[in-house]
Amino acid sequence: MSIENVAIIGLGLLGGSIGLAVKEHAPQIATRGYDANPDVRRIAGERALVGTVCNSASEAVQDADLVILCVPVGAMKAAASDFADSLPDHAIISDVGSSKQSVCEDLAEALPNATIIPAHPVAGTEQSGPEAGFATLFANRWCILTPPAGADEAAVEALADFWRKLGSRIEIMDAEHHDLVLAVTSHIPHLIAYTIVGTASDLEDVTRSEVIKYSAGGFRDFTRIAASDPTMWRDVFLHNKSAVLEMLGRFTEDLTALQRAIRSGDGETLHELFSRTRAIRRGIIEEGQDDERPDFGREH
Amino acid sequence: MSIENVAIIGLGLLGGSIGLAVKEHAPQIATRGYDANPDVRRIAGERALVGTVCNSASEAVQDADLVILCVPVGAMKAAASDFADSLPDHAIISDVGSSKQSVCEDLAEALPNATIIPAHPVAGTEQSGPEAGFATLFANRWCILTPPAGADEAAVEALADFWRKLGSRIEIMDAEHHDLVLAVTSHIPHLIAYTIVGTASDLEDVTRSEVIKYSAGGFRDFTRIAASDPTMWRDVFLHNKSAVLEMLGRFTEDLTALQRAIRSGDGETLHELFSRTRAIRRGIIEEGQDDERPDFGREH
Repeated sequence: MSIENVAIIGLGLLGGSIGLAVKEHAPQIATRGYDANPDVRRIAGERALVGTVCNSASEAVQDADLVILCVPVGAMKAAASDFADSLPDHAIISDVGSSKQSVCEDLAEALPNATIIPAHPVAGTEQSGPEAGFATLFANRWCILTPPAGADEAAVEALADFWRKLGSRIEIMDAEHHDLVLAVTSHIPHLIAYTIVGTASDLEDVTRSEVIKYSAGGFRDFTRIAASDPTMWRDVFLHNKSAVLEMLGRFTEDLTALQRAIRSGDGETLHELFSRTRAIRRGIIEEGQDDERPDFGREH
Repeated sequence: MSIENVAIIGLGLLGGSIGLAVKEHAPQIATRGYDANPDVRRIAGERALVGTVCNSASEAVQDADLVILCVPVGAMKAAASDFADSLPDHAIISDVGSSKQSVCEDLAEALPNATIIPAHPVAGTEQSGPEAGFATLFANRWCILTPPAGADEAAVEALADFWRKLGSRIEIMDAEHHDLVLAVTSHIPHLIAYTIVGTASDLEDVTRSEVIKYSAGGFRDFTRIAASDPTMWRDVFLHNKSAVLEMLGRFTEDLTALQRAIRSGDGETLHELFSRTRAIRRGIIEEGQDDERPDFGREH
């Protein structure tokens, strides 16, 4: 199974980065792209995010060996239905959504006879839109494939091979486990960041100007994550509800225990936790998943 | 009032950075330093963090116009008592602690007749110890002075002038307000980061290896903060208890409201919050308190 033509539906940060990464790392593959927003299509053309910017999803998928949906997870079903009639029989359908059980179900409903292999490249920045993409976004990042039971093995391998060409490392797991893992490594961190930035904005006894001025004490890190795309993240929480609520329950239990330790002056409990959290940071740096320079390498 | 001799007590990230910043930006000022840990003193000598590394706090402060305590807030009182008998009458006593009401009280008890002007440079990295300091740590960062009622204005101005020489911007506020503001811009963000990293480490159904591999989804940002010095942070929570508990209460109320929105499928509430949190990020970048490049300028 050879992938020679790729259709990218949705030309924001992820879709645009895939297009640019193909151009840089696999220029033999032709890309066609579509976005429902005409302004996005115009910018995609100017930045040459894909070889051909099409005026409809049907036009984009017509010769595709692989179609990648790069829209918010709440928009997957409608986006897939939009090109259902024009999809070549042999095409693999994939996506880049942050929740996988819901996407798998939605795509199967929209495209009942298609070969569907959902995927999630764990990569991104806080920026969004057609200006935000860049060719090296996926380098050394993990791309998780969640093929449904009985999926065509050749199609899974072809998709894995495509992502490897873009610099990704591949992991295969079932969609349910993916949704649990990502709830803790991505969804809850975003929810917490949005919450604390909201809490800080709403205070009456601390001004917004003070929050901004003294943000270098730690708060500013959270504002980066809380600047992420609102629609994308709304959809993630609505579509990975049970795993998010489960992990949120564990987080608030742990936070309540720390609150109690602070109230009772139990320094030992605090020190024990604060010492053991360093090990995970070391693991992340050793695994090449973050910059080892202090402060993420921010300029001082 | 002229500051010509500065004593730095505690030669970790903050103390070391002050010494290096003086050498770079105000080389006419002589620095003497002391640390209770002999290994730290040895490294401080090798890195020339201060002009003279002394073998006792009394020796370090003997000719000082300004003494800056750079120890965890729980160690302030003992560190100040240690040199009380050798302190020149005219010397200003200051510090770099993250809580100010407790420090102000502790220093006043240890040094009842001294001129005490507590301070908090809102700057740092996740690293600690005598290897971690650098001369530009305070550039364009705010240093908050919290002079007690009736403090000598000339002493306040001399201290402000010292910090300006190191690149800081100066704000003056009362200690109680400082503790409330920093609870939200620094202490709660650290507490949350420590908590989520702890929660992720303790899961049974998600392995530590999975947490590390997929950390680029947002979690890795929290691990940087959660790699901060455990003793320093234990002390902050124990010494700024009431403001931390107050702000934590507000945060958990807001988080509970979001949890409810997720459970009930209320996308509008989520989208509204996620849209409005972007404004604070823009303010922080415009105010020069963070890097505007995507992902903090991490290399991709």
